[in-house]
Amino acid sequence: MTDSSLRGVFAPVITAFDSALNPDRQAWLAHCQWLLGQGVGLAIFGTNSEAASLSVAEKVALLEALLSSGVDGERLLPGTGACALTDTVSLSRRAVELGYAGVLMLPPFYYKGVSDDGLYCFYAEVIERVAENDLRIYLYHIPQVSQVPLSLALVERLYRDFPEHIAGIKDSSGDRDYLRGLNALELPGFSVFCGSEALLLDNMRQGGAGCISATANVNPAAICQLYEQHEEANAERVQESLDQIRGIFQGHPMIPALKAATAHYRGAEGWRRVRPPLLPLSDEEREALLRELAQAGFQMPDL
Amino acid sequence: MTDSSLRGVFAPVITAFDSALNPDRQAWLAHCQWLLGQGVGLAIFGTNSEAASLSVAEKVALLEALLSSGVDGERLLPGTGACALTDTVSLSRRAVELGYAGVLMLPPFYYKGVSDDGLYCFYAEVIERVAENDLRIYLYHIPQVSQVPLSLALVERLYRDFPEHIAGIKDSSGDRDYLRGLNALELPGFSVFCGSEALLLDNMRQGGAGCISATANVNPAAICQLYEQHEEANAERVQESLDQIRGIFQGHPMIPALKAATAHYRGAEGWRRVRPPLLPLSDEEREALLRELAQAGFQMPDL
Repeated sequence: MTDSSLRGVFAPVITAFDSALNPDRQAWLAHCQWLLGQGVGLAIFGTNSEAASLSVAEKVALLEALLSSGVDGERLLPGTGACALTDTVSLSRRAVELGYAGVLMLPPFYYKGVSDDGLYCFYAEVIERVAENDLRIYLYHIPQVSQVPLSLALVERLYRDFPEHIAGIKDSSGDRDYLRGLNALELPGFSVFCGSEALLLDNMRQGGAGCISATANVNPAAICQLYEQHEEANAERVQESLDQIRGIFQGHPMIPALKAATAHYRGAEGWRRVRPPLLPLSDEEREALLRELAQAGFQMPDL
Repeated sequence: MTDSSLRGVFAPVITAFDSALNPDRQAWLAHCQWLLGQGVGLAIFGTNSEAASLSVAEKVALLEALLSSGVDGERLLPGTGACALTDTVSLSRRAVELGYAGVLMLPPFYYKGVSDDGLYCFYAEVIERVAENDLRIYLYHIPQVSQVPLSLALVERLYRDFPEHIAGIKDSSGDRDYLRGLNALELPGFSVFCGSEALLLDNMRQGGAGCISATANVNPAAICQLYEQHEEANAERVQESLDQIRGIFQGHPMIPALKAATAHYRGAEGWRRVRPPLLPLSDEEREALLRELAQAGFQMPDL
């Protein structure tokens, strides 16, 4: 059982690119600092970070830059899961060495239809190879993208066999039954994060630990407010207001939309860049997004 | 238009692992040499090579070892497609520098539902960044695994815009309409490989270039025989005999089955190893496979 499991709201931090599509470290660090100041932790290298579009070397360089910038590791949860065992191991080990609080770990996602036993062996082999007492793995269930689900039975088996290392899970499935099933396992010290603030109130009422949500990149303080006040009388109303903003972003391709909004509110057009195979929003899509956000009275404060 | 496009039969070479699950270079090179001697080219780092389970550094080391062993690059087609633009670029560039005849390139496969325009940008960006006249890309269509299909319109657009670099495609979909559609494009010098010898005769009759097939790891000479004799009277009969062996392997998990057979006929148990999330065949599964192969009179000659 882990006694230091993470809780709260985390943003899968969007990654800034320069005009050559290399990571723009300065712009990225500024966004990281702003997010921390708004109260959210940093789940760098998530799906919405375009982590899959970055090499291991590019990720290690950013891991090092973030800690060198003076940020404390305790609210940092980098994604380290890759298709290759050796990539997952090297990135995870480096994160632990640097003092990151935990790692968010996709299953290997190239081969489809793999067995629970095979996925169990993958995670077990990673734990053995990283060989660090401080390794805290948060499993990452996002079957609509990875196409490799983590069954409840697998989650429980990994936790029972590696209680010092299996610290929690992010459930991005959007499947309310799966989320309820996770919380019903009642694994001591195991943090259940939902992958969208749309399920945050439900998750907290079920005993969950918080959320790791794309839109925490742009609406962090309001999501934190619900996390803090989920037992108060106005919680339902706060949830509804979050859902409105979330709904606007979900009406567009999420990653380009997060970046278009960030570019606009920061007055920094470079933020619109994405790596292929993703594409930026067209001018028309962008105008529609910004119009909808303005109509909802949306702001990104304190930039 | 490329004038040096590859043709014939290629094996997506299975990767040998040592007891620490690191690539066993010596065993792998011996298998490569045997395959070349049986008449097939080497599509190292394919799906059946567990390429997704290897880091870029591990692949570069094997790329270098194969050419250092004295093999000529002209029958070598390594897989270099990865989720990250930068990984695809660095591995592809290294392959061209070393003299590999072409590269087999998966689309980036983490994000799902990406547009043809986004995939086009990915391949265009790779071509621009590799910046080598000798880059010959063979597209890799395997939607049941990658979950990212390459539409016929995208294939044609890439070929029209980059005729010196887009040299062919491997179609592993098993979709006869798609294969017919590819050949009907009639792109000059563009090599259409099917992903299974079960479609080899059809593909050759449609004007295709050959096949790149998992079972070419274990049954290479017989598949080459059909390629060579596809216009002869006995071609249908040869196809039927290939289909029988293919059918046996398809009745088991393919990669562990190829490795179990190789281990058996080579008398080298180490070949059974796979990297997680894959698992070796159980003893029972292995016995069933070997029994079926023996009943069919199957052999791996000249080992």
